[in-house]
Amino acid sequence: MTSLRKSLVLCILLFFATSLARAQAGATWIWYPGDFEIWLSNKMQATRVERDAAFMPFWRLYSHQPQINFTKKVTLAEADDITVFTEGRYSVSIDGRFVQGDQQKIHVPAGAHTLDITVFNPAAPPSIYVQGRTIHTDETWAAGPRPNATPPAFNAAFAAHWNFDRPEQRPSEFKLATREIKPRTTKLGPHSLLVDFGEETIGFVKLKNLKGSGKLAFYYGETREEALSPDTCETLDRFTVTRHKGAFVSPNSRALRYVNIQLDEGMSADQVSLLYEFAPLVHRGSFKSSDDELNRIWDVAQRTLELNTREFFLDGIKRDHWVWSGDAVQAYLMNYYTFFDSDTVKRTTWALRGADPVDMHINTILDYSLYWFIGISDYYQYAGDAAFVKSIYPRMVSLMDYVLKRRDANGMLEGLPGDWVFVDWADMPKDGELTTVQLLFARSLDAMADSAEIAADHAGALHYRQLATELKAKIVATFWDPEKQAFIHSRKDGKLNRLVTRHPNMFALMLGYLDEEKAAAVKRNVLLNDKVPAITTPYMHFYELAALAQSGQYDDVIGQIKDYWGGMLNNGATCFWEQYDPKQTGVQRYAMYGKPFGMSLCHAWGASPLYLLGKYTLGVQPTQPGYAAYLVEPHLGGLKWIEGKVPTPRGDIAVSANATRIKVGAIAGHGVLRFSSSSLPHSASGAMRSLGGERYELTLQGAGEYVVDYTAPVRPAPP
Amino acid sequence: MTSLRKSLVLCILLFFATSLARAQAGATWIWYPGDFEIWLSNKMQATRVERDAAFMPFWRLYSHQPQINFTKKVTLAEADDITVFTEGRYSVSIDGRFVQGDQQKIHVPAGAHTLDITVFNPAAPPSIYVQGRTIHTDETWAAGPRPNATPPAFNAAFAAHWNFDRPEQRPSEFKLATREIKPRTTKLGPHSLLVDFGEETIGFVKLKNLKGSGKLAFYYGETREEALSPDTCETLDRFTVTRHKGAFVSPNSRALRYVNIQLDEGMSADQVSLLYEFAPLVHRGSFKSSDDELNRIWDVAQRTLELNTREFFLDGIKRDHWVWSGDAVQAYLMNYYTFFDSDTVKRTTWALRGADPVDMHINTILDYSLYWFIGISDYYQYAGDAAFVKSIYPRMVSLMDYVLKRRDANGMLEGLPGDWVFVDWADMPKDGELTTVQLLFARSLDAMADSAEIAADHAGALHYRQLATELKAKIVATFWDPEKQAFIHSRKDGKLNRLVTRHPNMFALMLGYLDEEKAAAVKRNVLLNDKVPAITTPYMHFYELAALAQSGQYDDVIGQIKDYWGGMLNNGATCFWEQYDPKQTGVQRYAMYGKPFGMSLCHAWGASPLYLLGKYTLGVQPTQPGYAAYLVEPHLGGLKWIEGKVPTPRGDIAVSANATRIKVGAIAGHGVLRFSSSSLPHSASGAMRSLGGERYELTLQGAGEYVVDYTAPVRPAPP
Repeated sequence: MTSLRKSLVLCILLFFATSLARAQAGATWIWYPGDFEIWLSNKMQATRVERDAAFMPFWRLYSHQPQINFTKKVTLAEADDITVFTEGRYSVSIDGRFVQGDQQKIHVPAGAHTLDITVFNPAAPPSIYVQGRTIHTDETWAAGPRPNATPPAFNAAFAAHWNFDRPEQRPSEFKLATREIKPRTTKLGPHSLLVDFGEETIGFVKLKNLKGSGKLAFYYGETREEALSPDTCETLDRFTVTRHKGAFVSPNSRALRYVNIQLDEGMSADQVSLLYEFAPLVHRGSFKSSDDELNRIWDVAQRTLELNTREFFLDGIKRDHWVWSGDAVQAYLMNYYTFFDSDTVKRTTWALRGADPVDMHINTILDYSLYWFIGISDYYQYAGDAAFVKSIYPRMVSLMDYVLKRRDANGMLEGLPGDWVFVDWADMPKDGELTTVQLLFARSLDAMADSAEIAADHAGALHYRQLATELKAKIVATFWDPEKQAFIHSRKDGKLNRLVTRHPNMFALMLGYLDEEKAAAVKRNVLLNDKVPAITTPYMHFYELAALAQSGQYDDVIGQIKDYWGGMLNNGATCFWEQYDPKQTGVQRYAMYGKPFGMSLCHAWGASPLYLLGKYTLGVQPTQPGYAAYLVEPHLGGLKWIEGKVPTPRGDIAVSANATRIKVGAIAGHGVLRFSSSSLPHSASGAMRSLGGERYELTLQGAGEYVVDYTAPVRPAPP
Repeated sequence: MTSLRKSLVLCILLFFATSLARAQAGATWIWYPGDFEIWLSNKMQATRVERDAAFMPFWRLYSHQPQINFTKKVTLAEADDITVFTEGRYSVSIDGRFVQGDQQKIHVPAGAHTLDITVFNPAAPPSIYVQGRTIHTDETWAAGPRPNATPPAFNAAFAAHWNFDRPEQRPSEFKLATREIKPRTTKLGPHSLLVDFGEETIGFVKLKNLKGSGKLAFYYGETREEALSPDTCETLDRFTVTRHKGAFVSPNSRALRYVNIQLDEGMSADQVSLLYEFAPLVHRGSFKSSDDELNRIWDVAQRTLELNTREFFLDGIKRDHWVWSGDAVQAYLMNYYTFFDSDTVKRTTWALRGADPVDMHINTILDYSLYWFIGISDYYQYAGDAAFVKSIYPRMVSLMDYVLKRRDANGMLEGLPGDWVFVDWADMPKDGELTTVQLLFARSLDAMADSAEIAADHAGALHYRQLATELKAKIVATFWDPEKQAFIHSRKDGKLNRLVTRHPNMFALMLGYLDEEKAAAVKRNVLLNDKVPAITTPYMHFYELAALAQSGQYDDVIGQIKDYWGGMLNNGATCFWEQYDPKQTGVQRYAMYGKPFGMSLCHAWGASPLYLLGKYTLGVQPTQPGYAAYLVEPHLGGLKWIEGKVPTPRGDIAVSANATRIKVGAIAGHGVLRFSSSSLPHSASGAMRSLGGERYELTLQGAGEYVVDYTAPVRPAPP
């Protein structure tokens, strides 16, 4: 049995084992959709510090509903005895009558009944866990702010849950896991210790033996320089202890590679360790190639994404520890090629959106509201989770209502008072109608139309589709410059700004909004034109390289990944950074926001090679939601060989390729393998057809291994 | 010095002393308007029980904002050192820069600065208390969900506060006061005590000496019968103690007159008392007359209102302990003739309304949304508090938007799915367009128009006024029956229901929406027509008697008060009831909602004689907001003499009258004394003029005592 098959079998076994465990356990904690996520993200985001000061989000925080009614209609062949656990003060009624006496163990007679449990909890999301022989809490229960409501009446919805499958696992007590890790080096000073954990990490610093009385300070650093700069490091903790003896654990989880521990005279400490704090993730995706640097880039990218995949997808673990929509939407895509952790995508989507009414863009950022819609569309394409789309659709509608109300007289979006138009850290005009923003707007209208169809809002689907179509036509008519043969930057007060930036051009290309002629022009005049200012953030490199790949520049993509991300490795990176300018050296590399160590050295948007290598090099992507149909189109991109796995909801797809062979471990579903070859392959395990030119297609008919052998080298598909 | 003058001087001294104390203390706890009230009302209302079961409100509960930014621009002649207290995690920034180091004692340099304090608190309203030499928290600080916002941008508003004037008085720890009271009788049984507190009361039962192990049960009763019915009493508490010795205090405040204490074998208890729980209120209003029964009615009504004036104005203290809009709006009016507790009116108004968005009528009741607007209009008329109207106006607009969206094709309101149309407990059709509901709608549109003017929303004022005018015309055109010469009950699916009920007719009369001819017809054909079904709730008696008084039936009003409320006294009432049917006897008097003791025997809406006797018998009412101008028009109503005081924001107005003399202790402001006399008064301390007929008017030019003497008896004003 090959290792591929072993994995598949293991995966299937795991799947059944999980299902079985769930079927036996039955019940899970449930809540009103979004409430747990809103509450947890508020709590998490409010822990941000800037040195001594708390630094709470500057956007409006939404609240969970303080009271929720959970309802379920049951028809029992025989009586059931249920046990009720709740988070909050509660009452139980059966068929509209309050249960008297014991409020926890309740007898439900045989027959048809309506159970109604009302929970009040101003401090944390009202949630319940009910377990009987047949009755148990799950997503078939209705939940809403008014009793006994059938979704969608009175804002009722079907209940949400995660993995709190035991009564004692109360959602309000959710904590990430921890594991003790040892430092690589500890350097002792007279009243200090400088500890190096060898790589970027996060957790609670622990001193096994702290003795004495006085002040104790931890100065954290993503770099040695930062830890050794008590006056300018971004995070620190100060404690005072009295006649302390024994272990000391910091109550604060901090991102660090180094910690500089300072003690008062007469105090001593030894054996520093870290309670590494993490979300348990399965490493499903993988990537290896003939290029060691590229392999190291993939590993460090995975480490970067993993550290930022926590309660939610974070922007970075050191400084913000916040949930940002534009950042998250990239993390989702990287996640589909590594952990395929759907729960974290869903939690993050709920948390970003918050509750109603909307009176602010997500994170206050105009473009971040638009990315949010796109993230849902992407998630549906990768995970095929229609239930989630239906569940969140009402909040999509209310956010889109807000967006549509803010259009200008041209039906376009520009920043209004209170809005932040971000797009990128790049220095460029951001007022007026930005072409990039209108492109994202069009894409988000398409996402609305698709989601409306899933949610059976057919009128909505028509409406949003029409808006998208009109807007796309308007974008081309307004911003395509026939002379420059490229999209120009913006229009303000009716006046065009004919500046050419990479941003609108790469988005238009990547979104597939261009005909062949325009796509070629954009590639030639912008993407491959050194005179157009370069992208300086990994954030925008994500889209630039995706656009390059879409236009067939696979070698170029590999080359740029090696240059840019390899450059960070050469600068000692153990995770990828928020920003990287190859021209900078020394501590200036770490400065940002006017602060010497303001930059984040472990930033989720730094991990995009995960996505680029998975989607364009291994070449795996869904062509129907949830990989019901999918495409495998590997591109060596100048490498000798590549191999890896791409996780899907139906198991992992394994791909390996070299100059003379492509091998695919396929999943159940309608797969297609595409490749180019100057000669006909001399063997193939399946039905193959020519697509014309040097392009061929092999149908992957269900799970199993497919091999194509050549004599001539595999070539990239012609651009 | 007369006792009247003494009171006035005392009142003025008290006013200045309070102002001085406030000026010295300076700071007070502040929060985002409505947040404390929403949070406290949720907490209070969730404590309702029905025997063993918690019974939470069946309407959607709103939440406070989990994070608020407080902002203040200061210009300091010299530096200030401020101390910061908050409820929640917080950061302080000065001119946009976070304060580092000590987060509580902060130095603010001389000059112009912007202070910005952000507080996060998911569990209770974010609030702050800042005290410096000159800087201090008060209503001049801005508060809102986004930083540094100037009201009304981004939902920012000026901060709200109450009386939490010391840093240790944290709003989240608010509790009512308690005072220990002794029972009137305690009857000992073998394992029980039956305790009678002599009158309706509320608080925590205390046993001075509880000994032994086992179960302890308290069965509460508003009547002896209820306390002695452990299986059907509305409230009870059960405890289990182990080797207890010493005092035992119930953690639950309950309404009761009687408590039946049951102990397990081997346990003993003695010396029962009650920690009476109350809101400290000043008894400013008073009423005495030549009729002892009427005096007793006033006293019991005051007791009834006082017990229900707590965190908010409640409907009743035993059962619901909830805040109901229709009930509260009556309590406000009674309050203006007794305690004039403006803070409780404002708290109740915020609590009823909740936050945005509105997706439900207040208490789910269509008519209760409409009363809410009227309550604000009444409050402004009595208290003249324009700041409050400005503060709550945005939530008036959002609730009215909700109401306006729910109009039918005729521009009228009828109950839609999820709405409760209450009007009264009376048995009558409640579907379709009720005339009563349209009248309340018209009045609430007038309230909107008035409030819009105060809030300087001139376009809104015009709009609402026009809607009100159109609706009033439509009501008369639709529902006035020329044949019956009265308003008919309703219209459903375009078909009139020509039933005549008292409700629409008495509202139209009371609201002053009728011309003289129609008013006379309504009086004759409905109010004084025994064939029209009688009112059976004190709730609707309030409006019926007000309408009777408006139409000059003062003797009749006094007579009906003595009959109906005197009837309850004859039935042993120590507070007034939720419902009273003189035909019922025995325990059937206490049954309601299908439960033997379901009725509330201490219901705020039972206390309306306070309003009726103050407004129509003492005859005092504001004619300009806040009593800037007012009318005194006493009516003996068949009594030999009356005397009393009516509180106002400018001090108390004292009135006494008998057959030959009227005496008024006037306040600063433009007062007018009106009366009727068959002969010219032979002396009057002020400028008097004849109004024609037997009616006279004396101008009350500022504070002081005014006396009018007659030879002929004072008569009621002609109808």
